[in-house]
Amino acid sequence: MSKMKADYSLYLVTDRVLLGSRDLIQSVELAIQGGVTMVQLREKSVSTGEFLNIAYELKDLTSRYKIPLIINDRLDIALAVNAEGLHVGQDDLPMSKAKELFPDKIIGVSVSCLAEALLAEEQGADYLGAGAIYSTSTKADAKLVSLHELELIKKSVKIPVVAIGGINQQTIRQVMFAKIDGVAIVSAILAQDDIYQAAHDFRKLLASS
Amino acid sequence: MSKMKADYSLYLVTDRVLLGSRDLIQSVELAIQGGVTMVQLREKSVSTGEFLNIAYELKDLTSRYKIPLIINDRLDIALAVNAEGLHVGQDDLPMSKAKELFPDKIIGVSVSCLAEALLAEEQGADYLGAGAIYSTSTKADAKLVSLHELELIKKSVKIPVVAIGGINQQTIRQVMFAKIDGVAIVSAILAQDDIYQAAHDFRKLLASS
Ligand code: NI
Repeated sequence: MSKMKADYSLYLVTDRVLLGSRDLIQSVELAIQGGVTMVQLREKSVSTGEFLNIAYELKDLTSRYKIPLIINDRLDIALAVNAEGLHVGQDDLPMSKAKELFPDKIIGVSVSCLAEALLAEEQGADYLGAGAIYSTSTKADAKLVSLHELELIKKSVKIPVVAIGGINQQTIRQVMFAKIDGVAIVSAILAQDDIYQAAHDFRKLLASS
Repeated sequence: MSKMKADYSLYLVTDRVLLGSRDLIQSVELAIQGGVTMVQLREKSVSTGEFLNIAYELKDLTSRYKIPLIINDRLDIALAVNAEGLHVGQDDLPMSKAKELFPDKIIGVSVSCLAEALLAEEQGADYLGAGAIYSTSTKADAKLVSLHELELIKKSVKIPVVAIGGINQQTIRQVMFAKIDGVAIVSAILAQDDIYQAAHDFRKLLASS
């Protein structure tokens, strides 16, 4: 088995709260049709069974579009649905365990400073989620990473760097100066009335950089 | 690798809320010294990192006493600490996945009726946790299993049956008429001032049956 080749450029991170009554699977499909290249399923305060059911449905969808599905935090869910990867935070499963228990898969790590970025690369991370770039209501407690530090991280590691946190169609222009490999978007796609159009607009902004 | 041989007779299920300010690891050690034969780590609303840290500490302890450690619900934690087993509820990871992803380990299943018990055995469960026998504040929403149904379950399956839910030093006498393989205890050990003595008293009651 080899790792799925990943296009990190427009990386959607899910948040069902933002969707209100809208269906997660349908919403992600609209985002993929709009141009999302990668999907991370992030669930909080949900039972294992419910998480698993959502993950199975999402895996069916992303497989049809040949898009990598990354599971946030939960290796058990990632293993059960045979996702393409796992994303861990600084307080989740340690990198060494993630790599041992989920070999030949994409392992991403959240970092909020250069030291964490260098350590994660050394430990074998496949990509970094660097942020939060801007403060955001979906993760209000997140430490902030300046655009200067984002550039420094990107220059200091060889693995792909995805910027996350408060990136929208206005702020993305600044973020792209850091020459990162992708932007991770939550509310600027999923909280929009027209999810397809929002994703599509991001694609155009990325293409024009 | 082969499964650890398990003595299900006095099966402790953890609940940190019951301990107040007392340390979980120290409390479980007292219970083991009192005669607990098996430990299930059950955590709710805790981060993966915190769950993992507790599980590592508990695994060190149970290994020293050569007592099987079973992790409730979370296969990722069970894998990471190389626990002896995983306990799943009816809404958790399905049995088939648990067996596939955690081979040669003890897989237990919660059942609340004969039909669930027969299905779990057919799917390869190593033991059943049958209950709740009595209603209990630690799991107020649990479906109840009558002592009659408990007997029926025990007579109908070949795998060990552990009764759970509201069992204390008074109710255990009735439960033991069902000739089950063990009793799972939460508050009747962990909520007691003298945890060692509580476990020790259960051992005496079990020996006298
Ligand atoms: Ni004694």
